Amino acid sequence: MILTVTLNAAVDVTYHVDEIRPHSSHRVRDVTLRAGGKGVNVARVLHALGHEVVAAGLAGGPDGDVLRADLARSGITASLVPIDGHTRRTLTVADADATVFNEPGPLVTPDEWRSFLTVYESLLENARVVVLSGSLPPGIPDDAYAELGARASRADVPTVLDADGAPLLLGLAGRPAVIKPNADELARLVPDAEPLEAARTLRAAGAKAVVASLGPEGLLAATGSGDWRAGPARRVAGNPTGAGDAAVAALAAGLIAGQDWPELLRHAVALSAAAVLTPTAGGFDADAYRRFLPDIRIEAR
Amino acid sequence: MILTVTLNAAVDVTYHVDEIRPHSSHRVRDVTLRAGGKGVNVARVLHALGHEVVAAGLAGGPDGDVLRADLARSGITASLVPIDGHTRRTLTVADADATVFNEPGPLVTPDEWRSFLTVYESLLENARVVVLSGSLPPGIPDDAYAELGARASRADVPTVLDADGAPLLLGLAGRPAVIKPNADELARLVPDAEPLEAARTLRAAGAKAVVASLGPEGLLAATGSGDWRAGPARRVAGNPTGAGDAAVAALAAGLIAGQDWPELLRHAVALSAAAVLTPTAGGFDADAYRRFLPDIRIEAR
Repeated sequence: MILTVTLNAAVDVTYHVDEIRPHSSHRVRDVTLRAGGKGVNVARVLHALGHEVVAAGLAGGPDGDVLRADLARSGITASLVPIDGHTRRTLTVADADATVFNEPGPLVTPDEWRSFLTVYESLLENARVVVLSGSLPPGIPDDAYAELGARASRADVPTVLDADGAPLLLGLAGRPAVIKPNADELARLVPDAEPLEAARTLRAAGAKAVVASLGPEGLLAATGSGDWRAGPARRVAGNPTGAGDAAVAALAAGLIAGQDWPELLRHAVALSAAAVLTPTAGGFDADAYRRFLPDIRIEAR
Repeated sequence: MILTVTLNAAVDVTYHVDEIRPHSSHRVRDVTLRAGGKGVNVARVLHALGHEVVAAGLAGGPDGDVLRADLARSGITASLVPIDGHTRRTLTVADADATVFNEPGPLVTPDEWRSFLTVYESLLENARVVVLSGSLPPGIPDDAYAELGARASRADVPTVLDADGAPLLLGLAGRPAVIKPNADELARLVPDAEPLEAARTLRAAGAKAVVASLGPEGLLAATGSGDWRAGPARRVAGNPTGAGDAAVAALAAGLIAGQDWPELLRHAVALSAAAVLTPTAGGFDADAYRRFLPDIRIEAR
């Protein structure tokens, strides 16, 4: 199975309003709640593709229960270690556009983090690939992804790491099979460098491969067997939220299938573009995915 | 004891942010959750004043549990009938000012409403006054306050009704001891009339007394034993949220104590002004309450 780790999972809430006006009162037309967080979105995509997946993470408080219930309703196997802190919400107020409010994550105690590591070790026994996604909640050490990556390496399980800032930089010590920064993250991590040069620098720093997402232009990969650009034949208009998570899902699935890099990138770009066509993260247009596949342009660099 | 009824209770959530900017992403500095809804706020004030109070209503879903837990933590006895629907939230995004999002209330089934009526009947046996507050969630009939008022009348228990629109107008058939519209509600219900004339009209329509809250100017009362204006000696600056609920709490407490109208209004204005000094609904500044009491100006009309 594919193991996804979401240490800062969330309940994604959407309020539909007519128009957001600061410092006034709004009637919310309807409220939707959905299990979220980058690793949960990846699990959702993999589950829809028919892969066996376990969504691991931490959950606490009333919204921890909402998270568990929504995953159960979606048919996704979850392994969420209970915490005293309360699972956070992300709130999107949707009118013609989106206004987002991100709650802070729960404080995680050292004991809770140790419990997670124990559960993680046992899940590794059946994992063929591990996906490590998203931010770390307060209390989790910044080198958490290095620790999780090193444990996966010892169990001979490759990892895909999708994080930012210190957790990503320190995570390189865990020797991830792939990291997936986006263009902004790449520029922040390696300033004053061309994207490909920056990707190569991160590879030299410990990642076996770097696949950077460049928004509508597709993906840029620096790998041990060559460098590539891969992009859709045409620009796809829609909601880019979750496109990166779909790319990560494709990379994880492709690693298991033993796809070579051009094939891996073809699937990642097609699935990512198909995710842009659906309004919520973790969803994708299955017909579009199949339709896009033959038209993805792959170019060696 | 004093029985408060909040059929559309809520969890009041506050997000503190630096500055609300539509169509951008916000980091929420901290999140507070608190049991809310007008009747719950009234119960909170009465509990702080040392009165025996039972907060009755409906609660369901994860936020129904949050509501119960917060009332328990506050030491307020609750009698919340379980419903399948989910208790709503009100969200205040606070920067220098407040932006409010009101979720729709849960759908209440006819069976749940009947269950509430059964519980209400048994609570009436020990109630000395009933406070009926706030909006009605979907599924509750518009004449709910008429029904609750009539049942209280049959049990010889006076009611204080604080509602708006159809539930208030239809509620007059329940012969409430006092209704407490604010100036806007008064103007909507009886257009093109002076406030005192409008209050007298509502009294003629069924309310034994009408106490209208006129914001910083205080209260206007049309009663069977005369009409009064009552106001604070000086304007009080602060947060007016919950000031009306504090006035209702004072009216309920005063009805039990058998205070005459000038004394009732004195307490209601002083408590209301003391509530303006605290940032959250259901709170008041106890010292200010005592300090304001002798200075309230009461004027017969």
